[in-house]
Amino acid sequence: MGEVAANIDTLREALAEAVAAGARLVVAPELCLSGYVFADEREARAAAVRRDDPRWGRIRAALPAGVVAVVGYAEDAGDHLFNTAAILTRSHRIGDYRKSHLWGSETRFFTRGDAAGEIFDTPVGRLGVAVCYDNEFPEVPRRLALAGAEILALPVNWPLVDRPVGEHAPETIQAMAAARTSRLATVIADRHGEERGVPWTGGTAIIDDDGWITAEAPDGAGLALTTLRLRHPSDKSLPPHNDLFGDRRPDLYG
Amino acid sequence: MGEVAANIDTLREALAEAVAAGARLVVAPELCLSGYVFADEREARAAAVRRDDPRWGRIRAALPAGVVAVVGYAEDAGDHLFNTAAILTRSHRIGDYRKSHLWGSETRFFTRGDAAGEIFDTPVGRLGVAVCYDNEFPEVPRRLALAGAEILALPVNWPLVDRPVGEHAPETIQAMAAARTSRLATVIADRHGEERGVPWTGGTAIIDDDGWITAEAPDGAGLALTTLRLRHPSDKSLPPHNDLFGDRRPDLYG
Repeated sequence: MGEVAANIDTLREALAEAVAAGARLVVAPELCLSGYVFADEREARAAAVRRDDPRWGRIRAALPAGVVAVVGYAEDAGDHLFNTAAILTRSHRIGDYRKSHLWGSETRFFTRGDAAGEIFDTPVGRLGVAVCYDNEFPEVPRRLALAGAEILALPVNWPLVDRPVGEHAPETIQAMAAARTSRLATVIADRHGEERGVPWTGGTAIIDDDGWITAEAPDGAGLALTTLRLRHPSDKSLPPHNDLFGDRRPDLYG
Repeated sequence: MGEVAANIDTLREALAEAVAAGARLVVAPELCLSGYVFADEREARAAAVRRDDPRWGRIRAALPAGVVAVVGYAEDAGDHLFNTAAILTRSHRIGDYRKSHLWGSETRFFTRGDAAGEIFDTPVGRLGVAVCYDNEFPEVPRRLALAGAEILALPVNWPLVDRPVGEHAPETIQAMAAARTSRLATVIADRHGEERGVPWTGGTAIIDDDGWITAEAPDGAGLALTTLRLRHPSDKSLPPHNDLFGDRRPDLYG
């Protein structure tokens, strides 16, 4: 919580572990450089990082060429702070996505972004990026898939909530449904354990483009790793008669 | 399959059983008067029923005053057949909803309806109605909830598909996610067993407005019964800071 330098070290170790295991896309949790449960705006600001901060170089240096990382952080944009995900390679800062649906007391610290998820062209393909509560709005993953996203990177911090025995976390169910309905594989990186009395779901998981979980972090912590075999993003066919996108009736949804 | 008179008798028995158990809203499966796996259009037409068919009187007579039934049937509309759900009380035919997203070879027999789900004012409240594949498009339950539906009646015929051990059917996951994301309780009536070589999911279930399954038909057959305690349809609040609808950013979804 608030220890940016230590968190960068931890992130570099996690990136190295994932890369050593063969990962070409690595997703880290929401606000992983700062912690989540800020006491006040001063504390949030102290843990915020500018896009041009030189410390990003240390993070990018942990990535071999061709690997893409998505890293959640508190963005210091001068007058405003944003809850942002950076999309990085060794050689480039590909972009930054600012969360546009803010949860809980985030509104005390952060300004809303002005895109409902965003697509970035990366060495691993057209990458959709959204952050946590964004994905609870089915419009968000749907919009990204319709715009040609090949995969969705989803940094989250899911506070643990009650659920019936044997059920997945509700946010996981939401992500599975969104993945299947738009054939959009989804990589979820969640916080785990507890922070200042808030227990986390530990929902780190990879969902394939049929909506099934193909990897989860053991006990919610550490690395979830899988090889995703994805259909082409323009292929939404359900042979012999149907098509997930072609069968839409957008004229009737207004 | 195709035995309309026998199916009406079975439906009357099922309605009587549900009513005796205290049900005020009863949902029967898609195409429950006709069967699903038609060999050809002639067979579909032979099992189709007009809205003004006198046999509807026998079905309505099985309902005490104040009870609402939703019944899937093949609708004979003269030149066209539709895959339709009738919304009935003892005294009124409240309306008919024609499925607008057709699955598989349904397009050989049926014409698409021109509404993506529809809302009917009934003695049990503002009832959203959609049919089977309609609900695989997240736009449909979302649209109905935004328009003030208090509950979604969903007659379905879900062909059984493979799924990982321990997971719900994918269509169930879809319905759970849609129910939770829009706080829209959903009543699913599915076919069960097998028909002309097609095995069915037997997914009959009632999902509450938090997205959890509160009742399922034993072994997929027969009656699922529950008491739903619903929030007011205008209450989408997530205290203390959030609101499932108020937090939407429709300006960003275009």
